[in-house]
Amino acid sequence: MSDKNSSNAMWGGRFASGPDAIMEAINESISFDQRMAAQDIAGSIAHSAMLAKQGIITDNDAAAIKEGLLTVLSEIENGSFEYSKALEDIHMNVEARLKVIVGEPAGRLHTGRSRNDQVATDFKLWVRDQMDAAILGIDALIRALVDQADAGADMVMPGFTHLQVAQPVTWGHHMMAYVEMLARDKSRFQDARTRMNESPLGAAALAGTGFPIDRDATAAALGFDRPAANSLDAVADRDFALEFLSCSSICATHMSRLAEELVIWSSAQFRFVTLSDRFSTGSSIMPQKKNPDAAELIRAKVGRITGSMVGLLTVMKGLPLTYSKDMQEDKEQVFDAADSLMLALAAMAGMVADMTPNTAELEAAAATGFSTATDLADWLVRELGMPFRDAHHVTGALVAMAEQKGCDLPDLSLADMQSVNGAITDTVFGVLGVHNSVASRVSYGGTAPAQVRTQVARWKEILA
Amino acid sequence: MSDKNSSNAMWGGRFASGPDAIMEAINESISFDQRMAAQDIAGSIAHSAMLAKQGIITDNDAAAIKEGLLTVLSEIENGSFEYSKALEDIHMNVEARLKVIVGEPAGRLHTGRSRNDQVATDFKLWVRDQMDAAILGIDALIRALVDQADAGADMVMPGFTHLQVAQPVTWGHHMMAYVEMLARDKSRFQDARTRMNESPLGAAALAGTGFPIDRDATAAALGFDRPAANSLDAVADRDFALEFLSCSSICATHMSRLAEELVIWSSAQFRFVTLSDRFSTGSSIMPQKKNPDAAELIRAKVGRITGSMVGLLTVMKGLPLTYSKDMQEDKEQVFDAADSLMLALAAMAGMVADMTPNTAELEAAAATGFSTATDLADWLVRELGMPFRDAHHVTGALVAMAEQKGCDLPDLSLADMQSVNGAITDTVFGVLGVHNSVASRVSYGGTAPAQVRTQVARWKEILA
Amino acid sequence: MSDKNSSNAMWGGRFASGPDAIMEAINESISFDQRMAAQDIAGSIAHSAMLAKQGIITDNDAAAIKEGLLTVLSEIENGSFEYSKALEDIHMNVEARLKVIVGEPAGRLHTGRSRNDQVATDFKLWVRDQMDAAILGIDALIRALVDQADAGADMVMPGFTHLQVAQPVTWGHHMMAYVEMLARDKSRFQDARTRMNESPLGAAALAGTGFPIDRDATAAALGFDRPAANSLDAVADRDFALEFLSCSSICATHMSRLAEELVIWSSAQFRFVTLSDRFSTGSSIMPQKKNPDAAELIRAKVGRITGSMVGLLTVMKGLPLTYSKDMQEDKEQVFDAADSLMLALAAMAGMVADMTPNTAELEAAAATGFSTATDLADWLVRELGMPFRDAHHVTGALVAMAEQKGCDLPDLSLADMQSVNGAITDTVFGVLGVHNSVASRVSYGGTAPAQVRTQVARWKEILA
Amino acid sequence: MSDKNSSNAMWGGRFASGPDAIMEAINESISFDQRMAAQDIAGSIAHSAMLAKQGIITDNDAAAIKEGLLTVLSEIENGSFEYSKALEDIHMNVEARLKVIVGEPAGRLHTGRSRNDQVATDFKLWVRDQMDAAILGIDALIRALVDQADAGADMVMPGFTHLQVAQPVTWGHHMMAYVEMLARDKSRFQDARTRMNESPLGAAALAGTGFPIDRDATAAALGFDRPAANSLDAVADRDFALEFLSCSSICATHMSRLAEELVIWSSAQFRFVTLSDRFSTGSSIMPQKKNPDAAELIRAKVGRITGSMVGLLTVMKGLPLTYSKDMQEDKEQVFDAADSLMLALAAMAGMVADMTPNTAELEAAAATGFSTATDLADWLVRELGMPFRDAHHVTGALVAMAEQKGCDLPDLSLADMQSVNGAITDTVFGVLGVHNSVASRVSYGGTAPAQVRTQVARWKEILA
Repeated sequence: MSDKNSSNAMWGGRFASGPDAIMEAINESISFDQRMAAQDIAGSIAHSAMLAKQGIITDNDAAAIKEGLLTVLSEIENGSFEYSKALEDIHMNVEARLKVIVGEPAGRLHTGRSRNDQVATDFKLWVRDQMDAAILGIDALIRALVDQADAGADMVMPGFTHLQVAQPVTWGHHMMAYVEMLARDKSRFQDARTRMNESPLGAAALAGTGFPIDRDATAAALGFDRPAANSLDAVADRDFALEFLSCSSICATHMSRLAEELVIWSSAQFRFVTLSDRFSTGSSIMPQKKNPDAAELIRAKVGRITGSMVGLLTVMKGLPLTYSKDMQEDKEQVFDAADSLMLALAAMAGMVADMTPNTAELEAAAATGFSTATDLADWLVRELGMPFRDAHHVTGALVAMAEQKGCDLPDLSLADMQSVNGAITDTVFGVLGVHNSVASRVSYGGTAPAQVRTQVARWKEILA
Repeated sequence: MSDKNSSNAMWGGRFASGPDAIMEAINESISFDQRMAAQDIAGSIAHSAMLAKQGIITDNDAAAIKEGLLTVLSEIENGSFEYSKALEDIHMNVEARLKVIVGEPAGRLHTGRSRNDQVATDFKLWVRDQMDAAILGIDALIRALVDQADAGADMVMPGFTHLQVAQPVTWGHHMMAYVEMLARDKSRFQDARTRMNESPLGAAALAGTGFPIDRDATAAALGFDRPAANSLDAVADRDFALEFLSCSSICATHMSRLAEELVIWSSAQFRFVTLSDRFSTGSSIMPQKKNPDAAELIRAKVGRITGSMVGLLTVMKGLPLTYSKDMQEDKEQVFDAADSLMLALAAMAGMVADMTPNTAELEAAAATGFSTATDLADWLVRELGMPFRDAHHVTGALVAMAEQKGCDLPDLSLADMQSVNGAITDTVFGVLGVHNSVASRVSYGGTAPAQVRTQVARWKEILA
Repeated sequence: MSDKNSSNAMWGGRFASGPDAIMEAINESISFDQRMAAQDIAGSIAHSAMLAKQGIITDNDAAAIKEGLLTVLSEIENGSFEYSKALEDIHMNVEARLKVIVGEPAGRLHTGRSRNDQVATDFKLWVRDQMDAAILGIDALIRALVDQADAGADMVMPGFTHLQVAQPVTWGHHMMAYVEMLARDKSRFQDARTRMNESPLGAAALAGTGFPIDRDATAAALGFDRPAANSLDAVADRDFALEFLSCSSICATHMSRLAEELVIWSSAQFRFVTLSDRFSTGSSIMPQKKNPDAAELIRAKVGRITGSMVGLLTVMKGLPLTYSKDMQEDKEQVFDAADSLMLALAAMAGMVADMTPNTAELEAAAATGFSTATDLADWLVRELGMPFRDAHHVTGALVAMAEQKGCDLPDLSLADMQSVNGAITDTVFGVLGVHNSVASRVSYGGTAPAQVRTQVARWKEILA
Repeated sequence: MSDKNSSNAMWGGRFASGPDAIMEAINESISFDQRMAAQDIAGSIAHSAMLAKQGIITDNDAAAIKEGLLTVLSEIENGSFEYSKALEDIHMNVEARLKVIVGEPAGRLHTGRSRNDQVATDFKLWVRDQMDAAILGIDALIRALVDQADAGADMVMPGFTHLQVAQPVTWGHHMMAYVEMLARDKSRFQDARTRMNESPLGAAALAGTGFPIDRDATAAALGFDRPAANSLDAVADRDFALEFLSCSSICATHMSRLAEELVIWSSAQFRFVTLSDRFSTGSSIMPQKKNPDAAELIRAKVGRITGSMVGLLTVMKGLPLTYSKDMQEDKEQVFDAADSLMLALAAMAGMVADMTPNTAELEAAAATGFSTATDLADWLVRELGMPFRDAHHVTGALVAMAEQKGCDLPDLSLADMQSVNGAITDTVFGVLGVHNSVASRVSYGGTAPAQVRTQVARWKEILA
């Protein structure tokens, strides 16, 4: 890192003493905002091209600036660029290097803009890329889940409430539940992307500018839908970052639930699923032990992402307009959350694609605990016209009988059943047993394999 | 509240002992979920009407149920309904009372649904209403801000960065910055409302049902766009509540910033604004002291709302599907956040509508600190073709001269200016002074009164 | 609630219009701070007694004030007190009623104090009571855990990492792990109580007072260790409330872990524990289903309490000294968190006291997965002097052999073992098998029953 | 970073495929836990020395291990150590290098311990160091504040409530308010350090060990007060990290308040304080603009630290005992929070030491708004025996008179005063005026210069 004199120069020589080490340490952002280098350069190229088109700078200057910036970019990409902490941030680092490369025209690049709209533009471009990345990551995970659902549309497993077996459901149905959650996560990111896609560039320091700039042109060049309508707001607000963090928190919450299930399902007591070696770790002396490390780490990521959101909400609370230096704390929160989210999505997609449901254990577990008692009660209501609460009492009596006999409900004889209620006929057996149970749940969105296949087909079309 | 025997009855007589006082206290929800009574009854009426239309219950039963439920609703509305903690929640309280009123048909109401889809439906309806309320509240606040902007489109005030005067802006422009923020808040609630508007009803306990129910019919009757596509997801997820909380947190963050400004602006040192007596409190012996209580309380609300979001995110973290009792903690978080948000929006709208900007103080403050130095530098670039960084040095020298002379920039003579740079002409005076400065910022979204009027007109049309 | 005129009166008649409904709704605190009535009255009695002792008011006035305040307290306790929202808070409600009861002397009570030190005193007294309540609640839970540990000091169960069986441990040891956590929670509350126990009373509005008050006297009367040393700090800070919330969050985190274990252990797949009917709920038609509702609700409480802490931290962030109205948002956060914590502690204590470990299932689970492989490896190191990593390879080979033979490690013959490493002797069998394994872990703090009994005895003494 | 084969070797050759890039990325911790290298090596040296003393390994082996570990430490300190991501964490990285350096004895180091107690020990040592660092940092800041208080014990400034001038106070008193807050912060860290200072080493994987280890010896060697009493708790809990984060959050909240004041006081409207050039930044063309960057960044740090606490609380929520991989997310939260806290403390200490209170502005502001009205009212009560509320009405009338005359209270004549209340004597002027006012507030902890000097002296003794 270079010396501090340039920093003094940067502040107009006004300071009797340069900032000491503490101030430099708390003030600099180049150690992290260098991640926005490509966005910074893209913004500067768009800005200088517009300045030339509007006759504010010459075409020659614009061409020199563009070529110089591309040189800087290639230096950054090939690792030869030397960052200076004294130059504080990515914007000053790039500009200082540009000046060395192209000389005087570099001084014209900043015409009609300011560091305030520049940093807002860079950061928005960076966050927008992460929204796109999140959408792609979610798609990959949805695909893996739909494939599992497709393969296991008929596979029976327990449906839980309170982690107690409640009713049989299908593996495919369970997988598709997460598809629905993730689809909403995706639509959240899409909405957020649309909402944020207004260009701050040209807001200048905060008040706009008297130069005859064309904000529509720079907005279009950078893929924004339009320029932001208020220059104060454009440099002062970070709600696009907060929204990215809240979308990420909700998405990570969904993944934490699936991760928890995978941890529980991988236990020796459940054995519902076998995770691949790729996404678990072993013990050198206990070969049967497969620790679901990836699932646990994914489960943990929601903490980190939620923490980032709390962090940025706290930072932004009560800040007067427009830019305050507090807002420099926006980036690391978002960088860390974005990295965590993308990693969790990728690991979850890989783990889901690789995992193997243990069919026999799932089906056996589905049949425990008289899990088709509700089906019996429903049959009594449907076929015999009993009120719901009465049907519950008859069912309770039959379950008690089966429990006493040490058998399951389908193992009771018709005579047994009729001893409790004489109106019961042998068509009742058509709804008992876990396969009959799931097959009967044909209401829209129900767990019947036919319903699951419908949803799988719908999703395959969406993803095609 | 009634005795515990009914609770034992509710659980099928299976428990040797009733839940003791602690269990009742931690387990009951009727003390708060009674706020969803209207939603619960609307859902039940829609469900029973559908059951009759599908031939699952008779038309007579449906009519009896509907009439009975409307009686219950009127009892609740007129305060004569007696809630029982032993009956735990609003659903059981309503159903038990319905049974007393209409007898046997009450037992048929629960056919083809469960408490799980019922509570999800009730809560979604309640949250949907709050999204609508938030949108209305935001509109009212936007209206108050647009009115302030309209009246003060020409009024000059300081634009701040770091709470230091940076450049002159207009009062109208500052007001409109919040309009943009709130407009995004509104669009967040609109998107969230659209996303959540799928009916859980008919998901039953978790697996769907074998009864030939018509989920499209109940969805339509309750104003949902469609039924939810996966029954497990429908009863297990609460992301609509999380999204409501995150939209509310961001909106409250925006209000906290305006509230902070009003607190600072009301200080004796700033005197930028006079709050009305309605939204401030006084001191019995210091008559000039007007405490901006409402602004402070609004500023604080973001803490409470963010806390609610953290609370529910933490609750939902790592819950296996489908329903777990943990999820009973969803409601109070959302109730409290919704109440806080609506109150803050209303108080802010009232305070903004009532407040008076102190024109003279604002304009005087805008002129301090050589706030048009940037305008001078821009003029040097624009008119004399100086590179930006060179223009800064000339400007710095002129500011130093003015500082030494104890005057402002427009007070320097042309000769003074030319002593620093001979190319300066007297057209430079056209950009100095705060009114000239703001008038010159005509770039789209800039602070020029013309630009502000354009935005005010656009918003008046939107709000019309 | 009474009319608004009294409110106008309260503010010295200065306001042209009374606060309207919105302002009253956002501004009032009487709806929640009435919970501090007893603390408010205790503080006032201590203050007036001191005023009399210092000769600032007469003994007669002090006696009248005390008698009047006790009358108010009894009205509040018997429910006959009528709270007025227009009088905003508990302090004004009590004072107004006192004036009606005792007349003129009521006007002297406020001498040498202010609402600012009064509210800080009241709230500190309330929070201090909650710290005491938390300590008692923790003690009760520790007692229940120690009793479980005492009864199950020899009971073998699996020790988990990653929810995978790792090594056998004892039930008693597992219970005592939570005792250690809760003991630290208790010591946190004790430290916090000591730290906060300084009296704000006499700080007056913020600057202290010129009246010759005796702050030591009021501090002592209210059980404080000393008066707070800085009047600005005394009225401006709420770190005692934040510390209560953070202690509560950590304690609730500990309970969430035990609650999660109880939920998992109650599943049909684990069957490690049977919860009592008192702390679970059933299904009317599935008699074997026992939903661990209390455990789930306790698990959820950490969300609520953490949310409260985030809420208050956010409120306090960036508030200039001294009192700002934002701080009125301190109470509901703490009230809700305290209620949640006390309820969770009580429910957990009850649930732990009532639960039954399923000895057979625990022991069978402990033996799965070659859980004593580590014991074998340790034996190889200890008895044969092998380096640790080499011993792992020999153990791995023996585990593979057992797996192939379909038996557990103790079932291998000495010849089998010697075929892998000739130096193995039959003393190896002394460390295989789960009971041998746990008995061997005699290092301090280890799982051996002897160690557990030592800790149980230590705790019985502490609790005695 | 080296290849993946070593990783496969590490897991006993069991995995058909190595972890792919995603798994490596989510699973590794070496990129951050290398910060615990010194702690890891200290722990290993203590452990091996104890093993030798107990006769579990030879003295020669212990000596070789110690020498080898010191070599590794020097390699790390001089930057020549090559970290391998495939070796996942700092523990495996150190151990693998040790094996290369010393060969076979390295394999004996791990006797009687496990990665679980090793990581808990390392992390505790690291956090303990940070608690010490926080205490030192707080001391430095307290010293700077006491120095300011000492120099400004007589300096008058406004005391604010609601950011409205309430009463005159002294600069020294205001500074000392933060000393009290920080003193509690320090005592929080001290209590937390004492509470956490129990050694996990020897807890082994989770159950303790059968080797005859001496946990007291390793505890003493590492500066712990005693070994942790329960091995499961020792490897499973992270409440020491949570407590560090909560202490840090509260401390950062205190700093955010002072930072906010410095930002406001630096504004052109307040001008209460001049920050040094070292801790502010300028504008190249607006020389009077001094942005309080350091204050703003300190104000923001509370967000980041609170976010870390929320992050780790969320991670730990609901984790079954003992170690779960989720807990790997503990370190980065604490590292980041500790760095933020230490930086904020250092920057605040520097900024406070460097800042200059603007005496004239402070005193002028203190006198605005009839800020001694309360003093007048108190005089009426004290000297004339008026009830408090009556004195308020007289004062209100006199303030209104002064307001009408355009003067301050001390400028009214005795005749003016007696026209409102005939009993007023000219001794009243002794309490009017800001210097008289502050001098009169001599109650313990009050703002009188004498009181401030007492507190300054007390603190100088504490800090000596």
